[in-house]
Amino acid sequence: LQPFDEARCRIVEQHAPAVVSFHFGLPSPDLVARVKATGAKLVSSATTVAEALYLESRGCDAVIAQGLEAGGHRGMFLTDDVLSQTGTMALVPQIVDAVDLPVIATGGIADGRGIVAALALGASAVQLGTAFLHAEETTISEAYKAGLRQAGDRQTAVTNVYSGRPTRCLTNRMMLEKGPLTGAAPAFPKGFAITGPLRQQAEAQGSSDFSAHYCGQSAALGKPTTAGQLVRDIAHDARQQMNRFT
Amino acid sequence: LQPFDEARCRIVEQHAPAVVSFHFGLPSPDLVARVKATGAKLVSSATTVAEALYLESRGCDAVIAQGLEAGGHRGMFLTDDVLSQTGTMALVPQIVDAVDLPVIATGGIADGRGIVAALALGASAVQLGTAFLHAEETTISEAYKAGLRQAGDRQTAVTNVYSGRPTRCLTNRMMLEKGPLTGAAPAFPKGFAITGPLRQQAEAQGSSDFSAHYCGQSAALGKPTTAGQLVRDIAHDARQQMNRFT
Repeated sequence: LQPFDEARCRIVEQHAPAVVSFHFGLPSPDLVARVKATGAKLVSSATTVAEALYLESRGCDAVIAQGLEAGGHRGMFLTDDVLSQTGTMALVPQIVDAVDLPVIATGGIADGRGIVAALALGASAVQLGTAFLHAEETTISEAYKAGLRQAGDRQTAVTNVYSGRPTRCLTNRMMLEKGPLTGAAPAFPKGFAITGPLRQQAEAQGSSDFSAHYCGQSAALGKPTTAGQLVRDIAHDARQQMNRFT
Repeated sequence: LQPFDEARCRIVEQHAPAVVSFHFGLPSPDLVARVKATGAKLVSSATTVAEALYLESRGCDAVIAQGLEAGGHRGMFLTDDVLSQTGTMALVPQIVDAVDLPVIATGGIADGRGIVAALALGASAVQLGTAFLHAEETTISEAYKAGLRQAGDRQTAVTNVYSGRPTRCLTNRMMLEKGPLTGAAPAFPKGFAITGPLRQQAEAQGSSDFSAHYCGQSAALGKPTTAGQLVRDIAHDARQQMNRFT
């Protein structure tokens, strides 16, 4: 929840990862230049065509097209208007047409079918989030995991009541009574500090009424597995789906 | 804007079309039985898994999975909660998994890429709406057509201020000042009668501030063409896209 600053940039320079991926736009030009100087590929999320064009102009090597189905925080940074946000099916081809960069699709993709669909839309790769929350390795709470397992009967919504920024979560009392979107939300990331004590009290009583349980719209397609098995399964599944077109 | 009643059912019986497709659920069981007795294939829209299961149980021969990207009225009929609505990427595979019927995908599909993506998600066919509004044959107003051409810079929203039911339109003054969604909207279809005079007055002055210009989230992918050419182009385009997987 801290911005990417001088100290964090030094960590990147020390470890020289192959890829550095940002959310909510990009840090200042000097920090971006230092990241790129390490040889890392620079990636960030776009939720609109305008954001994709901005990221391209700032030197990104690939753009993540984040469709409205995606769980967690919307990467939106040139707009705070949720009406600007579109579904993955609409967003990916429009960003592919706009930029000369590889596009990584995310939002609503949970299995081989979604992967092949994203590739058909022109994406070069995909990014799965919620699908991995079903994996054994996750450290999320049991209540959160139970919510994901019931996702077929649960709703999600994009809400700003938890952090101050729009993020897709399983709907609960806090979101429905105070939002899902409200002009009264504190500026990001202050919301976390303000809502945190309420969440802790409620969770201690076994209630998820005030917990931000990030969740995309395809959680119901998820399966309990391990992260490694999930990757093998969806890769195999994607190849099978591609064979349907041959 | 009239319900499917005795008189309309007689027209179906007289003409015996190959397919009869409903929106907002289905008419009464006796009318459904009469439609099916003509030999017509019965189709309706589902916006959730629960609606798809309902349509299957009522004898539909195929289900249209209407993703949230779609322009025009949401077919929702078992819920009036817009939070239940999901993007095409998430909705299609979940409905495919739930029913034993062919699924027709719609919402955000405007070219061959979207068609192949929908097929990858498990759909058997697709339905395009907004893409055809760009065609020469449409009788929509010049102002509406201009709005579609500018769709890349315009936003859409699901609103109930025009008809009383949630429908995706190009955003305008009426939607932003009174909605996009409001509990004060009159029951469908009364909204049309109430907002109609305001729309007519505004349009006479060259303003689209109060016009319901239905538009999906992929309008920017549309091209001015004819309906016939559009069908040929997207079919050719879809075949080309499929070849990428061979």
